[in-house]
Amino acid sequence: MITTTIIGTGNIARHLYRVFSQSDEITVSQVAGRNSAALKYFGETATLLENGTALVKSDIYFLAISDDHIFEVSELVNDSKGVVVHTSGSVPMQVLSNHTNYGVFYPLQTFSKQRSINFKEVPICIEANTEKNRSLLSQLAMSVSDQHYYIDSEQRKSIHLAAVFANNFTNHLYHIAHSICAEQQVPFSILSPLILETAAKVSEAAPYEMQTGPAKRGDLKTQERHLSLLEGQLEKDIYTLLSNAITKTHQNNQP
Amino acid sequence: MITTTIIGTGNIARHLYRVFSQSDEITVSQVAGRNSAALKYFGETATLLENGTALVKSDIYFLAISDDHIFEVSELVNDSKGVVVHTSGSVPMQVLSNHTNYGVFYPLQTFSKQRSINFKEVPICIEANTEKNRSLLSQLAMSVSDQHYYIDSEQRKSIHLAAVFANNFTNHLYHIAHSICAEQQVPFSILSPLILETAAKVSEAAPYEMQTGPAKRGDLKTQERHLSLLEGQLEKDIYTLLSNAITKTHQNNQP
Repeated sequence: MITTTIIGTGNIARHLYRVFSQSDEITVSQVAGRNSAALKYFGETATLLENGTALVKSDIYFLAISDDHIFEVSELVNDSKGVVVHTSGSVPMQVLSNHTNYGVFYPLQTFSKQRSINFKEVPICIEANTEKNRSLLSQLAMSVSDQHYYIDSEQRKSIHLAAVFANNFTNHLYHIAHSICAEQQVPFSILSPLILETAAKVSEAAPYEMQTGPAKRGDLKTQERHLSLLEGQLEKDIYTLLSNAITKTHQNNQP
Repeated sequence: MITTTIIGTGNIARHLYRVFSQSDEITVSQVAGRNSAALKYFGETATLLENGTALVKSDIYFLAISDDHIFEVSELVNDSKGVVVHTSGSVPMQVLSNHTNYGVFYPLQTFSKQRSINFKEVPICIEANTEKNRSLLSQLAMSVSDQHYYIDSEQRKSIHLAAVFANNFTNHLYHIAHSICAEQQVPFSILSPLILETAAKVSEAAPYEMQTGPAKRGDLKTQERHLSLLEGQLEKDIYTLLSNAITKTHQNNQP
């Protein structure tokens, strides 16, 4: 049995709590946080974090908190045996090097309160300061997910950046598409099958191979018509920049 | 039984041919094209289009060809009874107004040779010059898909533009994410669950509500770190422009 303490009460804390509680191999000893309203979600394990609050001894301490507070909050853990890990994509592991045992447990997924996630399908990126700690984090990862990877801090920074493109920026493009549909009283749901197919395609072949559209074809006439339909300058700029990027990327590959 | 002629041999022609052939209510009388190699896919219905080739009389003629050739090729159809339709997102219906009966049958999906599509889930955008023709196109749409919409040429132009954002541009962001992973020897497949979840989310709530990430939070420190990781100027420009767009869109909604 692996015992865990979760520090934090946000989306990642909630998902870890839920999935750890469901596992026969993991116990959540304590969830500690400063937001008493948010703590209610965590039932009996919830502990309000105040000055001098003692944390329950655990095998692993999860810092499921915002990047800027990881160092400071990690100092609350006073346990030379337990492994102190953060769950951030962009913070180096070494921020925890004041501890004897430390590492990273980064679930690569977008978590929201509204949607439940099948955690078995979430890739877990693991890093640790010793072989033994890495092995413990692996064991934990395997009990909740079907895939985990050993990823060092440099790689993780890049994965986080790639995720900003694949998730944050993509979502903003969906938002622009949504606005365009709304202006013409077209339901956004008409685009759902296209959006899902676009996402599914790249599991099978490199996105480079899957590129289509006026910019790929070098079809300037359609691009001009599209630009004239867009009203906002920001949307025009995005259209132009991304079209130019696609044309440049595929310029030696025109039909 | 609805009889059809397909003119063209590309991806859309192939998908229409396949799905029409599988329907008990539709007959493909002929597939006509200029590319004899591509015509082989269409078996006995294939007809090489040369000067003076006569088209078989049909209820509906599909011009599944590139936008620029729709007007010219439509002149080959010499039938005042059959409905002449194109399958393009961006070309107005009126390009076919030399005919007595005409319309548009635009399947809103990204078609590639490699992947089979469940046509039942493809939204069909229909437009026609008369009620009767619209009703015939509806009947055809219903026999191959679970959803069709009456969409006029103005709306269709906007849908096509929205699709460029949701498909073409999104795919290019996937390509950038792919390159970032490749540089760090990380398999791109690590991002697949994130990409699929990002796409699935917006079927349930507006993309605006689903936005996350450093630009949404106004987290400039992370944005600077990300910019320093990017090597290409074009990628830096895309990062900056999309981050600014997200920040601006959500500026009254910071946490």
